Amino acid sequence: MELEFIQWLRAHAPDDPRAKLGLSDDAALLSFGDKTNIVVTTDLLTDGVDFELGKHEPKRVGRQALAANLSDLAAMAARPHSALISLALPRGGGANRGALELAIALYEGIEPLAVEYDVVIAGGDTNTYDGPLVLSVTAIGQITERGPLTRTGGKAGDWLLVTGALGGSILGHMLDFAPRVHEAMLLHERYELHAGIDISDGLALDASRLAKASRCGALLYTDRVPVSSAAIRLSELDRADDIEASALRHALSDGQDFELLIAAGPQTAATILQERPLECAITQVGELVAEPGLWQHSMQGQRKPLEEIGWRHA
Amino acid sequence: MELEFIQWLRAHAPDDPRAKLGLSDDAALLSFGDKTNIVVTTDLLTDGVDFELGKHEPKRVGRQALAANLSDLAAMAARPHSALISLALPRGGGANRGALELAIALYEGIEPLAVEYDVVIAGGDTNTYDGPLVLSVTAIGQITERGPLTRTGGKAGDWLLVTGALGGSILGHMLDFAPRVHEAMLLHERYELHAGIDISDGLALDASRLAKASRCGALLYTDRVPVSSAAIRLSELDRADDIEASALRHALSDGQDFELLIAAGPQTAATILQERPLECAITQVGELVAEPGLWQHSMQGQRKPLEEIGWRHA
Repeated sequence: MELEFIQWLRAHAPDDPRAKLGLSDDAALLSFGDKTNIVVTTDLLTDGVDFELGKHEPKRVGRQALAANLSDLAAMAARPHSALISLALPRGGGANRGALELAIALYEGIEPLAVEYDVVIAGGDTNTYDGPLVLSVTAIGQITERGPLTRTGGKAGDWLLVTGALGGSILGHMLDFAPRVHEAMLLHERYELHAGIDISDGLALDASRLAKASRCGALLYTDRVPVSSAAIRLSELDRADDIEASALRHALSDGQDFELLIAAGPQTAATILQERPLECAITQVGELVAEPGLWQHSMQGQRKPLEEIGWRHA
Repeated sequence: MELEFIQWLRAHAPDDPRAKLGLSDDAALLSFGDKTNIVVTTDLLTDGVDFELGKHEPKRVGRQALAANLSDLAAMAARPHSALISLALPRGGGANRGALELAIALYEGIEPLAVEYDVVIAGGDTNTYDGPLVLSVTAIGQITERGPLTRTGGKAGDWLLVTGALGGSILGHMLDFAPRVHEAMLLHERYELHAGIDISDGLALDASRLAKASRCGALLYTDRVPVSSAAIRLSELDRADDIEASALRHALSDGQDFELLIAAGPQTAATILQERPLECAITQVGELVAEPGLWQHSMQGQRKPLEEIGWRHA
């Protein structure tokens, strides 16, 4: 549904130099007269879709809501500045807890993360109603003198690098992940990156998005994708026949990894891989190619299509 | 509940020069390095509390969500710049309408208002879930060289002026009102205003808030409050014994008027009343007084307390 609505919006929303990239990238770049260095992004999370209040502690849910927005700022290599937190709280709160207690519990996850990433909570709107918990977070960041990192600057031949390990986020990473803010800023400052995106809907789908925005295709080296231990554990829990194949599928398609996918020229990318400037892992998972589409190598070393598997928003 | 939560937040949120006024005014004033001229505000509206999707056309509901935020920008005398619109849509949409159709119908109310007030829709997040419609709007504005109009600058002796007429908003005004953006900017540019607020929760309550923020009390001239025809109609529908008294009570306490309440020195205020620079009415409804509290004149011309009646958020 969301994709169709965005298409409808693109056809209906007039272009405006005061806000760019909003419908096509991870955050919108705002322009105020002479200054153009503010980015803004927003995420709305609902009980039953993004988390389950019956299962997940409110503290972790609150943290997740802010972290997802910080990941969008990271995708633009922006420095987090402030955030607004709006809540629609179930009247009565639920789970032996009043609405006020729920709001405070959510905030107890939000605040430490805000402090850790130097984000000021600038405001919000708190409401009770007859419905499930909804959190809406807007995060504001500043881009550096390098400008924003966007999805559009990739070139055929660029290497695709990914931070961390992928898949199985549902086992806990989706709530407890560290948004790659510092990693994105460091890479963007120290190296000439061409394009970037955060992996929120699965490597295959987000690599495909980055490639499309850069008017290229993407070839993924499926044998080099860093598969997380959670992806393997999930495959074991699934009692998959082929654990390795199942874990790779999780790594390619699971949502909410919130790792960074970066495109850079081969020389720059090789330097990054050699220098390993991050505390987390960084791995080459593919390259951008001239031919549109998403590709993998066949056993014979030829290209064959790779399905754009991933988390499709309802 | 919201008030308790804001009190909890005030005790827990560290002061930060990068975002001021967020917990005490209509919008937060953001500071980015050398520049401090951006304000940001957010409102979350839920079905059953702020509107009823069964009764109200989605187009009007969408319009209302953006208009309420523009009213907050008006309260700061800020020029609207951009907005982010996030939706939690009931799966299936409801009322013989799919979720996509509902999203589009909401947007058909949002877009014309955005165009009218020169606001660019910079992004958003659209979701479906098993729950009632929730709209979360964040609006960003720029303050002028005069600085922001805040709640805090009022002085004892200031006259209190109000735009338009008050009360009975539930009969339609709450959905179709024109946010007083141009009026606020014009007044703030042309005259030396001391303080301002938009009347979202009733004149009595919001006058009391402005007075408290300015460390004063407020004396309302209840015989001069501009009572709207809707407030009278509502009293007639209520079959009130004393239509006039009932309509005044609506004018003092009904939420969602979204008119401006301004404090200015007597000379400035008198000049405004004489020059009548706005297309809408502007009326003196009281004054700020040294003694804390909310007051009215008794029949004998003495001060007596006036109840802080108004819309209290659940």
